[in-house]
Amino acid sequence: MALSEFEIIQRFFHRGAISRQDVTLGIGDDGAVVRVADGYDLIISTDMLISGVHFPADAEPNDIGFRALAVNLSDLAAMGAEPAWATLVLSLPEASEPWLSAFARGFFSLADAVSVQLIGGDITRGPLTITVSVYGSVPRGEALLRSGARAGDRIFVTGTLGDAAAALEPDLNTAPGTHTQVVTRRLLHPMPRFIVGIGLRGVASSAIDISDGLASDLGHIAEASGVGARIEVASLPLSEPLGRLLMRQRAWELALSGGDDYELCFTAPARHEELVASLAHSSDCAITQIGVIESELGLRWIMPDGSLLAIARPGYRHF
Amino acid sequence: MALSEFEIIQRFFHRGAISRQDVTLGIGDDGAVVRVADGYDLIISTDMLISGVHFPADAEPNDIGFRALAVNLSDLAAMGAEPAWATLVLSLPEASEPWLSAFARGFFSLADAVSVQLIGGDITRGPLTITVSVYGSVPRGEALLRSGARAGDRIFVTGTLGDAAAALEPDLNTAPGTHTQVVTRRLLHPMPRFIVGIGLRGVASSAIDISDGLASDLGHIAEASGVGARIEVASLPLSEPLGRLLMRQRAWELALSGGDDYELCFTAPARHEELVASLAHSSDCAITQIGVIESELGLRWIMPDGSLLAIARPGYRHF
Repeated sequence: MALSEFEIIQRFFHRGAISRQDVTLGIGDDGAVVRVADGYDLIISTDMLISGVHFPADAEPNDIGFRALAVNLSDLAAMGAEPAWATLVLSLPEASEPWLSAFARGFFSLADAVSVQLIGGDITRGPLTITVSVYGSVPRGEALLRSGARAGDRIFVTGTLGDAAAALEPDLNTAPGTHTQVVTRRLLHPMPRFIVGIGLRGVASSAIDISDGLASDLGHIAEASGVGARIEVASLPLSEPLGRLLMRQRAWELALSGGDDYELCFTAPARHEELVASLAHSSDCAITQIGVIESELGLRWIMPDGSLLAIARPGYRHF
Repeated sequence: MALSEFEIIQRFFHRGAISRQDVTLGIGDDGAVVRVADGYDLIISTDMLISGVHFPADAEPNDIGFRALAVNLSDLAAMGAEPAWATLVLSLPEASEPWLSAFARGFFSLADAVSVQLIGGDITRGPLTITVSVYGSVPRGEALLRSGARAGDRIFVTGTLGDAAAALEPDLNTAPGTHTQVVTRRLLHPMPRFIVGIGLRGVASSAIDISDGLASDLGHIAEASGVGARIEVASLPLSEPLGRLLMRQRAWELALSGGDDYELCFTAPARHEELVASLAHSSDCAITQIGVIESELGLRWIMPDGSLLAIARPGYRHF
C-alpha cells in the first residue's frame, strides 16, 4: 500500500474550502480545538454507514461521501441547530486513490455548501465503514426535542415522502430522464432541512428527521412525548414522480414506512399554524399538515374511507 | 436476533453512573445537547478500534471497552483538557448479551472513574468495530499543542515506556503473578494521564500522547514545531518488570518504538524545570527528562557510548 494515513489525510481531506473562525485548530493534533459561542448549546450527533448495510457495496464513492455527511447533518436540522463542524472516521480495505478522491469530492461538496469544516477523524485499514459526527449550536435551551408534543398540536412534514424508498422498488424504468432518476437522486443526495429546522426554534413543540420512515419516527415523537397521533393518510405529501411511478396505495405505503427521505416531521401548537405557513414560504420548502397529536397513545392512520390502516412493522431494526 | 438497537442501548448503555450538569440531553434524541462553560475551548478527539487490527479478535470484551475509551481520553490528556463527555459507535456481528454486558462494564468502569458521561452514539450490525469520540474543555487558548516546542526546551515523558509493547513479545513467561502480567495490564488497561495534562497548562510548550511509539510521536512534535531533538537513550524510563523480562537493549528498543503506552511526551522551557518537578510530586506520577529540543531538524538518539542509534521504521503505519 503506497499511502500512509498521514498522506491520505494530507491529500484528500485537508482541502475543504471552509475555514471557520470558531476553529482554533483543525486536523493534525491529538484533537481539534473549537469554540462554542457564549450563550449557545452544543449539539452533537453521530451515525455510522456500513457497506452492504446502509449503502450497496458498489455505490459510487462520491454519493457515499455526500450521504454520510447528509444523514448526520439531518439530525442537526431536526434539532434546530446551525451546523459548524464534522469529524470523519473511515475504515477502508485499501487506500484506493480514485475512491478516496471521489469520496472526498462528495463529502466536501455538501460540507462546503453548508459551511461545515472537517476538523478531525481517523483513518484505518478494515472493512468499508464511514462514521461521521457533526456539531452545531443553538441558543441555550432552544434545541428542538422529540419530547415536547402535546395533545392538540398539529403534525407537519417538510417536502415529500416516499421518494427515497421508491428508488429501491424493483422493476422500475431506470432509463435516463425518467421519474426514477428523480427519486434515485433523493435517495443518493438527501438535502438536510437546516433552514426549516432553524426557523422552527420557538415554533415547533417537537421535531425529528425521517430516517427510518414516518411511522417509526413519528412513533419516536409520540413515545418521547407520552402522547398518540391521528394521521390522515391522504394528506401525506407525495412527489409528482412518485405518483407517476407507483399506484396510489403503494405510494402511501412508502410514504408511511419507507426510510431515507430525511425530511423533518414536527409538531406545533395550533396557534402557531400561521408561523409554520410563513416559514414554508420564507424557506421555499413545502410544509404539509398531516394530522394531530392526541392524548390517547398509539398512532392511528386514517384512510380516505375512514378505516384504520394497520401497520405491521414500522421502520428499520438494526439487529 | 432478539434485541433491537433501542433495547441494546436501554439495557447496556443507559446505565453510566455519571449524570453531569453540563448535559442537557444525553442518549435518546436526534443528538445530544451539552454546554461548554463560557470562556472555555472545546476539545474533540476520535479514534476507531477494529477487531484483529487494534486488538486481537479474541480479546476480552471488558478490556476492549476499557481500552476504546482510554486511548481516546489519552488524546484529551495530551491537550491539557478536562474530560466531560463521550459518544460510542459500535458495529457488531451479532447482539450477544454477554459480550455487550462485559464491554459496557469495561467502558463504564473508566468513564465513571473519570466522570465522563456517555451522551450518544450509534449501534449497527456489521464487522466488530468500536469508534469512540471524546469531548473535554480547557480555558480559552490554553490547549497543549504539538507545535510549540522551541530549541533549548527540555523533553520529558511520564511514567515508564515499553511495557505495553513488551506484553506482545513472544516467548514470555505468562504464568500468574509474573512480571508479564504487570506489563499485560499496561497494554489492556492504559490509564490516561489527565492530572499531569491539566497540570501542564501554562508549563509545557508542546505535548502528545505516546500511542504509536516515542520515536514516532516525538517526531510529530518535532515536525509540527519545525525543530529537532537529541535524546539520551539511557535516560528512557523503564519499569522494573520490563527490566526483568527483557535484555536492556531490547527494552530500549521497545521504549523507543513500541506503541500503546499512552504516557505523555512533552516539552517545557528550561526555566520551567522546577514546575515540572513539583507537578511530578503533586500528581504522584514519575516524570523523566530524556533530552533536549535542538534547532537542527531530525531526532538524534544517543547511546551510552555516545554513538547514534539508527531507527529504521518509527511507529505504526495504518496502510
